[in-house]
Amino acid sequence: MRKLFFLVFCWPFLTQAQVNQDSIIIKKMSDEIMTNGKAYDLLRQLTKQIGGRLAGSPQQQNAAVWGKRNMESFAADKVYLQPCKTPNWQRGGKDFASVVSVNGKAMNQPLAALALGNSLGSNGLVEAELLAVADFDELEKRKAEVKGKIVYIHSVFDPTIIQTFIAYGKAGVFRATAASRAAKYGAIGVMIHSLSTAPDNAPHTGGMKYDENYPKIPAVALGPNDAKELYAKAKKGTIRVQMQTYGYFLPDADENNVVAEIKGATFPNEIITIGGHLDSWDVNEGAHDDGAGIVQTMEILRVMKAINYIPKRTIRFVLFANEENGGRGGAKYAELAKLNNEKHLFALESDEGGFTPRSIGITCSPEQFNKLQAWTPLLKPYGTEITAGGGGADVNPLKTIDANVILAGLVPDSQRYFDLHHAKTDVFENVNKRELLLGAVNMAAIVYLVDQYGVPK
Amino acid sequence: MRKLFFLVFCWPFLTQAQVNQDSIIIKKMSDEIMTNGKAYDLLRQLTKQIGGRLAGSPQQQNAAVWGKRNMESFAADKVYLQPCKTPNWQRGGKDFASVVSVNGKAMNQPLAALALGNSLGSNGLVEAELLAVADFDELEKRKAEVKGKIVYIHSVFDPTIIQTFIAYGKAGVFRATAASRAAKYGAIGVMIHSLSTAPDNAPHTGGMKYDENYPKIPAVALGPNDAKELYAKAKKGTIRVQMQTYGYFLPDADENNVVAEIKGATFPNEIITIGGHLDSWDVNEGAHDDGAGIVQTMEILRVMKAINYIPKRTIRFVLFANEENGGRGGAKYAELAKLNNEKHLFALESDEGGFTPRSIGITCSPEQFNKLQAWTPLLKPYGTEITAGGGGADVNPLKTIDANVILAGLVPDSQRYFDLHHAKTDVFENVNKRELLLGAVNMAAIVYLVDQYGVPK
Repeated sequence: MRKLFFLVFCWPFLTQAQVNQDSIIIKKMSDEIMTNGKAYDLLRQLTKQIGGRLAGSPQQQNAAVWGKRNMESFAADKVYLQPCKTPNWQRGGKDFASVVSVNGKAMNQPLAALALGNSLGSNGLVEAELLAVADFDELEKRKAEVKGKIVYIHSVFDPTIIQTFIAYGKAGVFRATAASRAAKYGAIGVMIHSLSTAPDNAPHTGGMKYDENYPKIPAVALGPNDAKELYAKAKKGTIRVQMQTYGYFLPDADENNVVAEIKGATFPNEIITIGGHLDSWDVNEGAHDDGAGIVQTMEILRVMKAINYIPKRTIRFVLFANEENGGRGGAKYAELAKLNNEKHLFALESDEGGFTPRSIGITCSPEQFNKLQAWTPLLKPYGTEITAGGGGADVNPLKTIDANVILAGLVPDSQRYFDLHHAKTDVFENVNKRELLLGAVNMAAIVYLVDQYGVPK
Repeated sequence: MRKLFFLVFCWPFLTQAQVNQDSIIIKKMSDEIMTNGKAYDLLRQLTKQIGGRLAGSPQQQNAAVWGKRNMESFAADKVYLQPCKTPNWQRGGKDFASVVSVNGKAMNQPLAALALGNSLGSNGLVEAELLAVADFDELEKRKAEVKGKIVYIHSVFDPTIIQTFIAYGKAGVFRATAASRAAKYGAIGVMIHSLSTAPDNAPHTGGMKYDENYPKIPAVALGPNDAKELYAKAKKGTIRVQMQTYGYFLPDADENNVVAEIKGATFPNEIITIGGHLDSWDVNEGAHDDGAGIVQTMEILRVMKAINYIPKRTIRFVLFANEENGGRGGAKYAELAKLNNEKHLFALESDEGGFTPRSIGITCSPEQFNKLQAWTPLLKPYGTEITAGGGGADVNPLKTIDANVILAGLVPDSQRYFDLHHAKTDVFENVNKRELLLGAVNMAAIVYLVDQYGVPK
């Protein structure tokens, strides 16, 4: 009773004995993960045996079956499916782009290109003069020149921004909206610089969205090297380009969130969620995005059982069905949470790649954040700390059903992620085993602490 | 005058204005490096055009010429050579190891193997029964069984140690001394598990040293997969193995440290050294070890000139001739520093790979360390902090000529380093451009701060 009093009224001022006990359990989980971790082998299965997992694809169906079977084998108290409709976008063919002529001189220079996700086919080959602009400001200034042209937008990352997710946020608006912004002024196609930090020529796909008020013109991302060369040429002369894409939608597909659960022994109605998303784009193996988050989630279930950890609260391990081109998995999970009147305390996502972990990013009130700093010494030995701001596209919808839910995200080092994000290079070979496992260690640690102490007021 | 007073007597309590000014200059250097950095292109040249650079090899000579030419092109005040004798170990042939029989049943299973650096040739094929032991404790217990056998030592990394350099230190003693420890009891050859964290089968070479009191038996490192399989088999039965190596020494070679200098405008006699080592093992491109440190060092020279930074103190950019199999480059630099009665304030090395930087590790007194923490807020935006303990094999000898020298080392994330350290996988393709440049940014920042404020008492 004394201990309970202490926990309830004095959180998070832990006694040294309690800190010692916590550090022992966290070390036990870490040792088990770093020594016997299955996440890397599971990732090999997911990427090499199943492969890319676009929502609606047979691979995505297979991945859910695989996830369910494995989480059952890890002896979760129960594993169940949450049926969930997902978009069913089809690339439809081999996207094509090329330079036809420069200053009237015929060329036939193919450009590395991928249609943006959700974009529609071009209905045959589209050819036009290129209008190359730096950004939307320049597009607006030159709107009178747009009609009948294919617009190129030089959506490069700002290399001086150290946190690449911030640079991605700034450049990402071009991928999302360039097609309709250009179509508004009469463009017949749009090309962007891939949202990439890599010194290579791999094009990066990723979600876009049409504004229903304008024609739905084809949209591609060019490989970085080709894009830079095209932009440099366009500043000096008149360029004609061609493009062809094949995108279309089938009726929404029937997919499933896969949910495993360990029932809480003390507060079974208080739920902690850990998850990642099963789907990926079609052009790669979705190894970092988000195979890593999937297998780390499964690893934490495995390690809790392996060390016979009995949680106080109910812990959910969720493989979300769809994030990339619709966010339907997270929406469904939150919808059912509301329907079932569930009490969610804390939801942690891993969807920034399987790179070496730098922090646990947490979205909560400043008062809660200050209190949570008490846990940083327990995370430091594993390379992380608690930083402000975090969550993930799959867990964020929980906040809309209960503003008190604390959202969290594993924050891996961000330098390499956008080299391969949504490109063909996001494959198993580019995931490092120790980095992947160490991410799981830090996720397990924060989940353990929330399970032990709940969350601060 | 007021400012000087402030700096001399109140170090390191910086005014907010000074912190702002420092952060502006550091940001300027960072922006220049992340946007126009040449380190990655230089590394491509060093690894792809020159290649592996074992001390005494033509490649090592070429690398020194290349380094001198490039640092001259970056407009150092002067660039000069420090002649330096280096060991001239030759691998001499294609190292070989195999399993001949298991429990009397003939096999012919080749083992991935590399002779350890400095080890001598076997004078033909050596065949014997294998004695496999976990460590030196077991070797000592079983010393009566050693005579006439080939000893295998299961020198695996402890995967539970998060900082891999600590695990390397523990396992490294086997690479360094196993041959003589086994020869002492009559072994005729020694095999170790490669000092590797990689889930692959690439053997890792690296320096060893014979004890002159015992026969100099051949020594190889086995690929991790082969080593684990061999160890498992040896626990269950009698194994005969073969090995053949070809190592020998030529007379010491004539190499050079390459030193570039920017003369200090205010305190020209106070020297700050930045460096890495030019040499590598012969089996790879020495991209992380230590091409990264070399090109980061050159990058800092370049950026200081690019932003027209005029240092107060003299800054030396040193490409050390030899670290891997002798440490002769650093010894020569310290010897000449003593001979010339130089005053060295601070010496920073990058020799832990071109991975994302986590801290600047500094070896100094606890009082100095506490004062240096004042700089951490200036480093945090670039991903690092100041941590205790640091230096590098090339700069450490300076401490022997002056105990007041502060040693420092760039501390990159350590999870991936021992996957490829001294193995054929240490190639350019495994270096990430942004990670490499970000290391240079943090090195430039700490050097700038030491240049501005000197070091605390």
